[in-house]
Amino acid sequence: MDGVLADVYEQFLNYEEIETGIRQPIEDLYGKPEEIAFKNMGKYVLSKGFFRNTPVLEGSIPALYRLNKQYELFVVSAAVEFPQSMEEKYYWLCEHFSFISWEQMIFCGLKSAVKGDIMIDDHFKNLDSFDGRTILFTQPHNYGLENKNHTRVFNWQEVLDLLL
Amino acid sequence: MDGVLADVYEQFLNYEEIETGIRQPIEDLYGKPEEIAFKNMGKYVLSKGFFRNTPVLEGSIPALYRLNKQYELFVVSAAVEFPQSMEEKYYWLCEHFSFISWEQMIFCGLKSAVKGDIMIDDHFKNLDSFDGRTILFTQPHNYGLENKNHTRVFNWQEVLDLLL
Repeated sequence: MDGVLADVYEQFLNYEEIETGIRQPIEDLYGKPEEIAFKNMGKYVLSKGFFRNTPVLEGSIPALYRLNKQYELFVVSAAVEFPQSMEEKYYWLCEHFSFISWEQMIFCGLKSAVKGDIMIDDHFKNLDSFDGRTILFTQPHNYGLENKNHTRVFNWQEVLDLLL
Repeated sequence: MDGVLADVYEQFLNYEEIETGIRQPIEDLYGKPEEIAFKNMGKYVLSKGFFRNTPVLEGSIPALYRLNKQYELFVVSAAVEFPQSMEEKYYWLCEHFSFISWEQMIFCGLKSAVKGDIMIDDHFKNLDSFDGRTILFTQPHNYGLENKNHTRVFNWQEVLDLLL
């Protein structure tokens, strides 16, 4: 969800700019883990409304709408670390992805117990434990990192080119 | 979680007794779906605190403690239908099963995207879509129903006898 449907980088940059008055250039964050890129990330993700008001990642709504017609689709979010985020994420999905039903949502700790044929994710740790085909969605934290086992995409159009 | 770790029948009976003054004998509920057994079930599960204060199913804490030492264990709950329940269930698990970490929790809609070697559940619909070994935990709603494909148990001691 984060980094694939939800544009958490935009939200982190917004929160940091409000707090510090400085907006980091996105290029400065390439290859850095999120918790290194954003010093106060831990505080931001615990803020009420952080996840409920995260911008939607460009192109994700029409892409998911089309994929949902052709595939048995689940939205999986490693959300349990921040339990207050689960309800926010649920309502965020209801608002922006109204064609995704509650039956299709999974809020988990680790994603290692999720099965499926294809996983689209921005984190190696999630893709590495998946049994099926894996698509790495490019985000600043994984930008430029060596990637042997997963198909890298840079945007939702590339996902559609692969899967439709 | 419900009907395996959380004694939701006890909680339904409590809520119904408070509302109507009548406590149904558990035997009257055998073989009846929960929503038939408890007319106002829909109202109860939406009540704030219903899941947070559900009693723990007898024997489940020491049993899970032992299984958790020997197995890679996940607690999976079909909770997303009632999004307010997720945070309640998280804190309920933290209170009663403090040895289960957030990494091991999954709150989902359908359980059909969960993988593993063994599933313990009280609902056929969850066990039927599981690829591994399946253990049917007896609850009034499944009591006496024909069961060809799953190993039926009546309590946590029987689970331990099977798995330890």
